Amino acid sequence: MLTDTLLDFFVETRQHTETICQPLEIEDYVVQPVVDVSPPKWHLGHTTWFFEEFLLKPYAKDYRLFDEHFAFVFNSYYESVGKRVVRTDRGNMSRPSVKKVYAYRSYVNEAIRALFSAVQAKELHQILEIGIHHEKQHQELLLTDIKYILGNNPLLPAYTPDFLEHPTESHEQLWISMEEGLYGVGYLGDGFCYDNELGRHQVYLNGYSISNKLVTNGEFMAFIENGGYTTHGYWHAEGWDWVRQNQISAPMYWHSIDGEWFHYTALGLQKIDPNTPVAHISYFEAFAYAQSKGLRLPTEFEWEAAQSHFPWGNRWEWTESAYLPYPNYRKADGALGEYNGKFMVNQKVLRGGSVATSSQHTRPTYRNFFQTHLRWQFTGLRLAK
Amino acid sequence: MLTDTLLDFFVETRQHTETICQPLEIEDYVVQPVVDVSPPKWHLGHTTWFFEEFLLKPYAKDYRLFDEHFAFVFNSYYESVGKRVVRTDRGNMSRPSVKKVYAYRSYVNEAIRALFSAVQAKELHQILEIGIHHEKQHQELLLTDIKYILGNNPLLPAYTPDFLEHPTESHEQLWISMEEGLYGVGYLGDGFCYDNELGRHQVYLNGYSISNKLVTNGEFMAFIENGGYTTHGYWHAEGWDWVRQNQISAPMYWHSIDGEWFHYTALGLQKIDPNTPVAHISYFEAFAYAQSKGLRLPTEFEWEAAQSHFPWGNRWEWTESAYLPYPNYRKADGALGEYNGKFMVNQKVLRGGSVATSSQHTRPTYRNFFQTHLRWQFTGLRLAK
Amino acid sequence: MLTDTLLDFFVETRQHTETICQPLEIEDYVVQPVVDVSPPKWHLGHTTWFFEEFLLKPYAKDYRLFDEHFAFVFNSYYESVGKRVVRTDRGNMSRPSVKKVYAYRSYVNEAIRALFSAVQAKELHQILEIGIHHEKQHQELLLTDIKYILGNNPLLPAYTPDFLEHPTESHEQLWISMEEGLYGVGYLGDGFCYDNELGRHQVYLNGYSISNKLVTNGEFMAFIENGGYTTHGYWHAEGWDWVRQNQISAPMYWHSIDGEWFHYTALGLQKIDPNTPVAHISYFEAFAYAQSKGLRLPTEFEWEAAQSHFPWGNRWEWTESAYLPYPNYRKADGALGEYNGKFMVNQKVLRGGSVATSSQHTRPTYRNFFQTHLRWQFTGLRLAK
Amino acid sequence: MLTDTLLDFFVETRQHTETICQPLEIEDYVVQPVVDVSPPKWHLGHTTWFFEEFLLKPYAKDYRLFDEHFAFVFNSYYESVGKRVVRTDRGNMSRPSVKKVYAYRSYVNEAIRALFSAVQAKELHQILEIGIHHEKQHQELLLTDIKYILGNNPLLPAYTPDFLEHPTESHEQLWISMEEGLYGVGYLGDGFCYDNELGRHQVYLNGYSISNKLVTNGEFMAFIENGGYTTHGYWHAEGWDWVRQNQISAPMYWHSIDGEWFHYTALGLQKIDPNTPVAHISYFEAFAYAQSKGLRLPTEFEWEAAQSHFPWGNRWEWTESAYLPYPNYRKADGALGEYNGKFMVNQKVLRGGSVATSSQHTRPTYRNFFQTHLRWQFTGLRLAK
Repeated sequence: MLTDTLLDFFVETRQHTETICQPLEIEDYVVQPVVDVSPPKWHLGHTTWFFEEFLLKPYAKDYRLFDEHFAFVFNSYYESVGKRVVRTDRGNMSRPSVKKVYAYRSYVNEAIRALFSAVQAKELHQILEIGIHHEKQHQELLLTDIKYILGNNPLLPAYTPDFLEHPTESHEQLWISMEEGLYGVGYLGDGFCYDNELGRHQVYLNGYSISNKLVTNGEFMAFIENGGYTTHGYWHAEGWDWVRQNQISAPMYWHSIDGEWFHYTALGLQKIDPNTPVAHISYFEAFAYAQSKGLRLPTEFEWEAAQSHFPWGNRWEWTESAYLPYPNYRKADGALGEYNGKFMVNQKVLRGGSVATSSQHTRPTYRNFFQTHLRWQFTGLRLAK
Repeated sequence: MLTDTLLDFFVETRQHTETICQPLEIEDYVVQPVVDVSPPKWHLGHTTWFFEEFLLKPYAKDYRLFDEHFAFVFNSYYESVGKRVVRTDRGNMSRPSVKKVYAYRSYVNEAIRALFSAVQAKELHQILEIGIHHEKQHQELLLTDIKYILGNNPLLPAYTPDFLEHPTESHEQLWISMEEGLYGVGYLGDGFCYDNELGRHQVYLNGYSISNKLVTNGEFMAFIENGGYTTHGYWHAEGWDWVRQNQISAPMYWHSIDGEWFHYTALGLQKIDPNTPVAHISYFEAFAYAQSKGLRLPTEFEWEAAQSHFPWGNRWEWTESAYLPYPNYRKADGALGEYNGKFMVNQKVLRGGSVATSSQHTRPTYRNFFQTHLRWQFTGLRLAK
Repeated sequence: MLTDTLLDFFVETRQHTETICQPLEIEDYVVQPVVDVSPPKWHLGHTTWFFEEFLLKPYAKDYRLFDEHFAFVFNSYYESVGKRVVRTDRGNMSRPSVKKVYAYRSYVNEAIRALFSAVQAKELHQILEIGIHHEKQHQELLLTDIKYILGNNPLLPAYTPDFLEHPTESHEQLWISMEEGLYGVGYLGDGFCYDNELGRHQVYLNGYSISNKLVTNGEFMAFIENGGYTTHGYWHAEGWDWVRQNQISAPMYWHSIDGEWFHYTALGLQKIDPNTPVAHISYFEAFAYAQSKGLRLPTEFEWEAAQSHFPWGNRWEWTESAYLPYPNYRKADGALGEYNGKFMVNQKVLRGGSVATSSQHTRPTYRNFFQTHLRWQFTGLRLAK
Repeated sequence: MLTDTLLDFFVETRQHTETICQPLEIEDYVVQPVVDVSPPKWHLGHTTWFFEEFLLKPYAKDYRLFDEHFAFVFNSYYESVGKRVVRTDRGNMSRPSVKKVYAYRSYVNEAIRALFSAVQAKELHQILEIGIHHEKQHQELLLTDIKYILGNNPLLPAYTPDFLEHPTESHEQLWISMEEGLYGVGYLGDGFCYDNELGRHQVYLNGYSISNKLVTNGEFMAFIENGGYTTHGYWHAEGWDWVRQNQISAPMYWHSIDGEWFHYTALGLQKIDPNTPVAHISYFEAFAYAQSKGLRLPTEFEWEAAQSHFPWGNRWEWTESAYLPYPNYRKADGALGEYNGKFMVNQKVLRGGSVATSSQHTRPTYRNFFQTHLRWQFTGLRLAK
């Protein structure tokens, strides 16, 4: 990518983050109701700190830090670059103020522009590109964290009419048959991708079938009615413990009111449309649903091999695959090597993308990953057999 | 008190709460870094809800609730008046917004004024008076909660130059001798007092001596240097567990920087003045300090009997007395009966008052109480023997 | 006491501990189902270690420790005498074996006999006496810990027919009137007592009435039927939290079977006799019961002043008094000073004695103390007003 | 297998379990120092209950349960067959006594013999075989649980001289090269295997090398000396948290005494032989070790494809593979279907076998599995690249 195009991409991405926050009250920027959800203010600062830490500090001549404490406040998990606020404490910090964080963003934006107007900066394209994609990843979290913050407030305030969460999947459900054989897996191209997609390699797949359609809210309601959450045989032992300890009996944000199902959305509390794809379920729930049908989730390889045959992008789709390195995977050196590799244990791969995914942020080889009990993302499922 | 005077007192008190909040950023109103500290926004709302719940709802004709959800959001611990937000969740709520809470305050202020302009309202003076004193109690918490919120922020922002935390006690330390005999204890007068002060009764005290001066920062530094926090023999078993589990080695807000003691104050980080009274210590620490001197804390009765002989009001002073009912104590009926009685177990009595105590809010018979490990109030100690 | 008499007392006490354990299987000696309950094996060893540590080690010439590791294994809480097994880990230790612990007892018994046959030992009478009373105190715990171990086993095995838990209080309930005035409190004599009973002093009591009879099981059943455990107004805030978090709805060991109340006893599961005094209730429950009657618990001073007017000794009786030092209380120096003083915070005083109390172990001035939520002792209540 | 041979196998297996327990004191049968370790008494009962529940109850005419409470006491995790003692409570139960449990074993042994002397019992061979292998699996746990119980006792008692934990791997370390291509994986034969080994299928492997030798204690000491436990870059994020929260700095049972490494073994505390394979490490540690060498763990498929080229059976070997179902895996119906399938999440596969593995219990396709932080099994590692 040429510097100009890349800078445009940078500016546009930086702007989009602020657009997402535009409907918020200042108070909404501050809170952290559970450990996995970060305050919007923190996302704004952290994505900015990433550019400061990995580009401006090492490469921008005479660069002065906006505030020397911000490295401590806005580092997320990079052990290589110093101490950081414990993740559970992010919601305890009223300062820096939202206004100050926006000033920090402008300051860093300006410094990046200045850095990249210099000729020698071309070598830094790759880091800038990672920074942009890193921010896009946080845009998705920002949306789902905002949903969590407002959707768990007793007043259930609406977020914005501009975010449409619930696309219809109106096509007929069909099974796509895939033949036994060797398939190529992993990224092959010269655009941007993460290191965990690299190492294009062959996998041998038995013959299988995969649905062309996501499981819908209506189908999930039937699962609930048929005792899905009370039948231990559908669940992993660990999933069953999770269900009982947390008294789970429906997807996140679902409320049963006078015998009807509602859910919290960007518009506030809404009646659930049975024809839209189910969202906000954990891997445990996706697995149990498949078991109740005598079916299963696809592996990430089955998904990747078949993905051109069905529409996707509305839901992150849980797969049966554990998040593991591809053959010949090698962590990058230094702090950027902490991006993916150190999370490759006890998580499941998700494929696809969701209504919260930023443009240009997903592709057929993209591997998202979460722990098996989490469900504040727009997570759904597709069946295989 | 005549209605007019009382209404003036009401208006002035309501105004003072907002004055305390004046230096805050909106973000500061929202967070709850630990369970004992409530968000300032919550104090603003809760003190208002108190008037709405106990005066307007039952007595104001045609009164319309400002928002029906606020009873849920702003009830603190009154089990008799319905469900309430769990105390640990107060800092997870970004809404209602600060602006909305101020509107709630104005709305209720206006309704109270209207109610008390009606002739029949004279019977309600007592409840209004409790509400005013309730708000004064929260003013103190508001100040100490703000200090906690800012003083535990990694940026250590100043609060305001207008709040002076550190009065000097420059008089010479002397022992006041009190003779053995019967002393009267408890409120005797016709002004306002809480139910836990009532039931004036006699207690028999052995002869004792009590210091005319609070223990100072300098004396407490010596305690630290002499191994006070590492000598188990000075501590209660429970206090010693607390010290070790929480790695306590100095009063709250104290920082040792290059061999010198600083503390966080309303002005930000300041060098500690050895001549000012120590603050922000738990009962456990007060007890251990006394033990290290071969002395003890006074009981609340010894304190009350001797209080006219020494100046007080700079620090809440820990006593050796457990918080228990006076003879013939009887809880009031209904929700207001929950004010004091139900906390009379496993807490210690504090006497005096502090730099954060609102005017007209303390008196010689006033009994404050906290759990033995808490120290975010301006708590200090006076020795006895 | 003369050496011979004291040695007889020692031998008899040591023997009685073993008699209590006689009905046990070896397995029963080992387990620790909750932190407050210690394995019987540990009691056998700890009471023995006390004599070894405080008498034999310092005073017996050429004494050789039975096993150098036992100080670590059997020290309870004496910080002054070295490291110790964490209390929660006592039930994780299968070794030393029960047989070895009995050998330890014999070895120490013999060494004590030898020590006290020497002339100079007369100075050590006081420590021996403390050791004997210490063991008597543990005999009580031994009985209640055994009850807990067997009574929480799903097989509910009987302990022994020789331990009678349930004395009848068949006399008529009457109120004893006590006049306002000064009363002497604390031990006055030359027999054995603990340091927390010393410092005979005067207290001024308002006039009061105290029941001549303990509250019975039948009365407590009525409390349950009348919603005692679901009426928050009867409870302290902390007690109410305890009830809900632990789902308490009856005294410990009570089981409702087909609409009838049974309880686990030394004989196994038995129908409850409504005329015997209630046992195994926490302070929180005792307080709530009194509140439900519009009455209260006596203070420990009221109890002591009135105790000659009613029979007692069947139940430890909760009082309203916090466990605090008497005037002029002074901790003994060294490890023995840790016996009482360091527990004088956040506990309540119990007066009386119980069916599990060893002979010669209680007296009118004896002060027992426990935390407010505990109830595995034979704790009951007497009302006052 | 013919009935006679199978019955011999049964008798021999049942006997071997008791032989393992022969060196124990009765006390050792009872304790449960951590949740993953069960009391030996429980293993003795649970393996017996398995035969009673799945063979005698459904198929033995007129069979009378030994004790109706034992299903509750000795069920491990089979949700389909009723309530059970919570796993953390197994060490709180002193009853049934060890003697009673041995009587239970004899009773059930006799009943099984009687059942299988009847002609029609041939259909039940499969269940009996599962029961035998189930008991063999528990024999391994029994040995490692005993080691944990004794090895965490402050007295560090020896277990038995007859159990040799530390085989030497004296052959030269070499890399075995395996070619890229398709390999068959899974059980193919007519002997016994578990359902998780079935479904022989092809996997495509890139070319790789695998060591012919396990990593040794000496090599692991070098890892420690070189800062292995303090270099975050070697660890997964979750592994790093585990290291810090549990202050892990060496394999389990290792003690550094005066600068030399000792470990607890069946013989008591012994100096560590640097030439024997390392044991008692978690997956996190195995992964970090490999990272520190710039190498990796083999996948379970790589291991299975190469296993004929190296000796194995001394250590359970951690692999990089998550424990997942093979293609076409289908849980058996009913309670026996809970054996494997419900654990197929968030665990890692181990291949090989160990010094604690019973004869005839492992094979090249055998898949063991544990959570990533566990290390009380004889777990080691082999490198790949």
